[in-house]
Amino acid sequence: MPLILKPGSRMVVATHNPGKARELAEILENRFDLVTAGQLGLPEPEETETTFEGNALLKARAAAQASGLVALADDSGLSVSALGGAPGIFSARWAGETKDFSLAMTRIEKEVAATGVADRSAWFTCALAVAWPDGPAIVVEGRLTGVLTFPPRGDRGFGYDPIFIPDGEIETFGEMEPTRKDAMSHRALAFAQLRAAIL
Amino acid sequence: MPLILKPGSRMVVATHNPGKARELAEILENRFDLVTAGQLGLPEPEETETTFEGNALLKARAAAQASGLVALADDSGLSVSALGGAPGIFSARWAGETKDFSLAMTRIEKEVAATGVADRSAWFTCALAVAWPDGPAIVVEGRLTGVLTFPPRGDRGFGYDPIFIPDGEIETFGEMEPTRKDAMSHRALAFAQLRAAIL
Repeated sequence: MPLILKPGSRMVVATHNPGKARELAEILENRFDLVTAGQLGLPEPEETETTFEGNALLKARAAAQASGLVALADDSGLSVSALGGAPGIFSARWAGETKDFSLAMTRIEKEVAATGVADRSAWFTCALAVAWPDGPAIVVEGRLTGVLTFPPRGDRGFGYDPIFIPDGEIETFGEMEPTRKDAMSHRALAFAQLRAAIL
Repeated sequence: MPLILKPGSRMVVATHNPGKARELAEILENRFDLVTAGQLGLPEPEETETTFEGNALLKARAAAQASGLVALADDSGLSVSALGGAPGIFSARWAGETKDFSLAMTRIEKEVAATGVADRSAWFTCALAVAWPDGPAIVVEGRLTGVLTFPPRGDRGFGYDPIFIPDGEIETFGEMEPTRKDAMSHRALAFAQLRAAIL
């Protein structure tokens, strides 16, 4: 009996980030009966792992266990070459408790400038985990490379989108049409793997 | 295209522990063309995660990436109720660089005695991860509860087996026939889930 998610299944999306929840719903194309961890009042577990996949798995497991439902979790972030991969898994934490990403983008600009390194390449990573209550979990990871631009451009997307231009593109993810972003993003790449495996 | 492992596929077993490699081969019943990470000369990654599943995933990912093969990894350990779940993910590390489990079992005996707690319950956890190179990974976890006994009994199995009596049994895993242990162990429970999902 291979792992399959039946269309229409009820699934909890283990995120408290409205931007991520919206993107996940768009990518899933209303294929499932989605409810968010926030709507169910589930606690947000501490992200104690050292990898995107580990943290996605930890969040999916916690939501599946607390809700008794199949749970989908996302852990994603921006890695900057000049900063040796930072902020990476700490991407959300760089935005602080108020989740102020303009602050976090300014910090990246300053820290990159301070290195004296000319390289502006960076990559987004998205790890997705789907966990069955008391059952298996599946984990996938998508990566998208690009270059950073300062100051931030555009008010679409969320997080670090306004400073990231995917390779081969001219717009930042903050400027790009959402449907275009959803077709090429690190999250879309991860979903393509998930779809191939279990949908 | 659901995730399926075809019989006879070549698979790298990401363990440098001969006891685990033997048990995994027994449980897999020669269903795959197994090679160990040790035989391929792959490096042993540092186990930086905070959960069994996270560490199993990390090891499977590292072996799949280094070898280009589907990789299977195990992370397992003993959790002692009186010690608040310790040694848990640190089970192997308590045995030190020389992997001396008689030392580790003595440490458990002393630390449990020092708590003054009468509870001798404990549980074994086994997390298994299968990772496809540049593809998805699947993670499962099996748990088996039991009681501790001191001094250690039996020279079968490995690790903490000589001090662990599964609930409902009278022999320790160190005394038990290997086929009997393989039918009930935390590792067998994890494999049953893996088998149901992808084999």
